[in-house]
Amino acid sequence: MTPSKQEILSVAAECFMEQGYHATSIDDVARRLGATKGRVYHHYASKIDLFFDVHREGMARLFAAVEPARETEGDGATVLAAMLYAHALAVLENHTFESVVAQGVQMHRFGATTPGQRSTLDELIASRDHFEALFKNQAAIAKKDGSLADVDISIAVKTMLGGVQWSLIWYRPNVDSSARTRANLAKQMVRTLIDGVRTRAALQQDKPERRPSRAK
Amino acid sequence: MTPSKQEILSVAAECFMEQGYHATSIDDVARRLGATKGRVYHHYASKIDLFFDVHREGMARLFAAVEPARETEGDGATVLAAMLYAHALAVLENHTFESVVAQGVQMHRFGATTPGQRSTLDELIASRDHFEALFKNQAAIAKKDGSLADVDISIAVKTMLGGVQWSLIWYRPNVDSSARTRANLAKQMVRTLIDGVRTRAALQQDKPERRPSRAK
Repeated sequence: MTPSKQEILSVAAECFMEQGYHATSIDDVARRLGATKGRVYHHYASKIDLFFDVHREGMARLFAAVEPARETEGDGATVLAAMLYAHALAVLENHTFESVVAQGVQMHRFGATTPGQRSTLDELIASRDHFEALFKNQAAIAKKDGSLADVDISIAVKTMLGGVQWSLIWYRPNVDSSARTRANLAKQMVRTLIDGVRTRAALQQDKPERRPSRAK
Repeated sequence: MTPSKQEILSVAAECFMEQGYHATSIDDVARRLGATKGRVYHHYASKIDLFFDVHREGMARLFAAVEPARETEGDGATVLAAMLYAHALAVLENHTFESVVAQGVQMHRFGATTPGQRSTLDELIASRDHFEALFKNQAAIAKKDGSLADVDISIAVKTMLGGVQWSLIWYRPNVDSSARTRANLAKQMVRTLIDGVRTRAALQQDKPERRPSRAK
């Protein structure tokens, strides 16, 4: 059987996720596919090219999930919540691919790569930055329309995306694989991140909002 | 010079963080220390023992930071916020050690370790679970006293810890190393995670609280 490019990518994503980039070989990927090494080399000249394509596919799936959510009706924070929900669901659904995306970010930071590989990694990181920018822009809109609190947008967005993406560490796709479970996980994550866990009653007590203050 | 155990641990944490467990050798650690391999082996019989001790030290630092915060005065959510702030600061301050802790969690999941190693990893993961339980218990207290919203405690805590821990991916200790910068980062992360980013005005509009409903 000749595996399709998509099959190769899926299996490669599993290998990279489980063993890490360095410990994975094209042989491992071929073995798991039940194909010869040649079948994989037919599509990919090297392991790093394969890794990059898994990364690209992972990013493409995130964009495909989040872009439509930008058209949600509502105030700025509601749209932001919809985007974050779409992102959370995509991260849960594409657990293996998104795990490899996170590895790519780490490789970019520490990787001893060749100049050619470096430029591909730069391109992938640029796509990651562009993704983060979608959320930052929406947060800026929400701040302007008064639906987002006066937070540092950059840190808040990194924290929100991180809160979702850390599910790559704890989510077990084999155990919690139903669409309903994933939808509930995504909903609870977004609720925590957008609305916060403190009750409004407790907020009121602790930090009166908009009370003019001369404190340092 | 004979490196102390603490020096070995710090340098080993850097190596593991930058290269990952598999690509790191005792030689790398010795070289960076400017010491002989023998000096490292004097303290550690193998690379995995060294890795485990870095992991242990990383966990010990998290407990040391968070335990005192449990004595904070205030309602349940205020204590939870203080614990999360202490955690955030500890993660930023111990960036290399905590990066290795995160690696250990991944190794536990996928690692092809020996039974002996496995039991040490189990012990480390139990310590990690115990750490998470501190936050879950506090969240349960906060839910009871009405300062925590009606969220799923397990998912909310994982999301909050994750929002903080994802800083292991984006925080650059060499660039943002001042204590003031770290305090501000920690504050903004906690604010996002505990109070949420949506303004109370927008919350009011979107989701009237405690309005009795018969919806399914």
